[in-house]
Amino acid sequence: MKMLKGKDVGEAIENRLEEEIANLRERGVIPGLAVILVGENPESQTYVGRKAKTAERLGLRSLDRHLPAEITQDTLEGVVAELNADPEVHGVLCQLPLPDHLDESSITLLIDPAKDVDCFHPYNFGLMAQGTPHFLPCTPAGIMAMLGHYEIPVSGRSVVILGRSNIVGRPLSLLLSAKGVDATVTVCHSRTPELPRVAAQADILVAAIGRPEWVGPDMVKEGAVVIDVGISRVDDPSRPRGYRLCGDVDYEAVIPKVSAITPVPGGVGPLTVLMLMQNTLRAARASLPPA
Amino acid sequence: MKMLKGKDVGEAIENRLEEEIANLRERGVIPGLAVILVGENPESQTYVGRKAKTAERLGLRSLDRHLPAEITQDTLEGVVAELNADPEVHGVLCQLPLPDHLDESSITLLIDPAKDVDCFHPYNFGLMAQGTPHFLPCTPAGIMAMLGHYEIPVSGRSVVILGRSNIVGRPLSLLLSAKGVDATVTVCHSRTPELPRVAAQADILVAAIGRPEWVGPDMVKEGAVVIDVGISRVDDPSRPRGYRLCGDVDYEAVIPKVSAITPVPGGVGPLTVLMLMQNTLRAARASLPPA
Repeated sequence: MKMLKGKDVGEAIENRLEEEIANLRERGVIPGLAVILVGENPESQTYVGRKAKTAERLGLRSLDRHLPAEITQDTLEGVVAELNADPEVHGVLCQLPLPDHLDESSITLLIDPAKDVDCFHPYNFGLMAQGTPHFLPCTPAGIMAMLGHYEIPVSGRSVVILGRSNIVGRPLSLLLSAKGVDATVTVCHSRTPELPRVAAQADILVAAIGRPEWVGPDMVKEGAVVIDVGISRVDDPSRPRGYRLCGDVDYEAVIPKVSAITPVPGGVGPLTVLMLMQNTLRAARASLPPA
Repeated sequence: MKMLKGKDVGEAIENRLEEEIANLRERGVIPGLAVILVGENPESQTYVGRKAKTAERLGLRSLDRHLPAEITQDTLEGVVAELNADPEVHGVLCQLPLPDHLDESSITLLIDPAKDVDCFHPYNFGLMAQGTPHFLPCTPAGIMAMLGHYEIPVSGRSVVILGRSNIVGRPLSLLLSAKGVDATVTVCHSRTPELPRVAAQADILVAAIGRPEWVGPDMVKEGAVVIDVGISRVDDPSRPRGYRLCGDVDYEAVIPKVSAITPVPGGVGPLTVLMLMQNTLRAARASLPPA
């Protein structure tokens, strides 16, 4: 049984990214990432903090904008427009969810597609869905990097994805079924009957539904590779903080069946942030005049 | 065994479209569709002719541009720009394939997304892939209309799509797995091992691979619904024209197993053109000032 560790994959990716950053710096460009955070949502703060920290560690310019929860749509749109226009900013993202009075989808549409490092803009999502991506959606790209790093064969394998979100399930299904990647992909969701039977046919099972420890051994084929994208807090009085983090997979229960599995935390999570950095470098490179 | 006839579905759709056109005309708008045809490819000529004829029959304004095969990229781009700017033109499409010296993808990107009635522009493809479509891709939308017309349940059913093109397989998989539609979708392709076994698990099997009569009874579950999107010419000296048209499905051989099937010709084909008209009406409606 192989443990698929985000840290090991991440180190290899960081080395590659550092080389690219050095290369860009030689050409006079410091890649800049601007993350907009509205309000005080503690989870959002954690994510934004992690992005800034990673950016700084790698030598990117981190230009965050922390805005009060009461900000108006107009003011927020003004901030996006300003970052769109700023030549030192190569990547712009707005941490979701936004407070209820703000319109997420119009903000997503307002971010310059050339700086849309989350790959949430329909233009970039469409390029990816058509098999000609500019940016890659971060979590799916992290999963692809994980599979690649551990040389897990994908071509000709059956992949079952549990979950059809626009952030993980749907884009991942498009990446995995693309020409040259060549997996046979099934997307399951809450309305799939006999889901355990379908899941148990997968060579590679990806759980991205956000139900803690929901995937049991009845859903896992003997020898399958399991990628757990979920991350939930579950009450646990025995822990100092009163909770523990767990994924969508009932880890202990499925371990005896799998050939490889990602732990939670420490699996796919750290790679998502690195893929964001990779997109930012891509945006910075694309902003250069042709050599 | 039910025969799923494009003609019957088409009549119902045409009635609906005619009402909408009358409504638009009352508001002073005649929906206009411009189809660009480059060169003398006979199949393209057939398709373009069919589009013009359908448009005219329904009372749309058909504004075709037939350009010589030797046209330069610049001139072609100029024609697109002109149609983009023409307020009488609500839908613009360039019939593919283009002659080899022309760049299809830059033409696709140049068409104003608001007039992109083929839904080929990444922006529109992305909106659709994210579950918030403006236009619908024509052939997938025709298949959805077919399933809807015959009240074939989709929610909770397993659908296997053979083929992963950007025109049929991939967009159809996204429409069928969307929230509210709720099929469990598997996309198979040339690199899928044991394809017959996978296909034979489908409640609804969609063949869109372009291999004449390739799908045999071993790939069809007892009682399945079969949608045949293929259309190929096969030599047949017994026919007056020396060929016959056939789909991807070995029709005679699978008929005893299916609960419903589309004939070829006369199945999905005619609906594709109607969905193009539907997109053109949508574009015309969207061009109106708010009521």
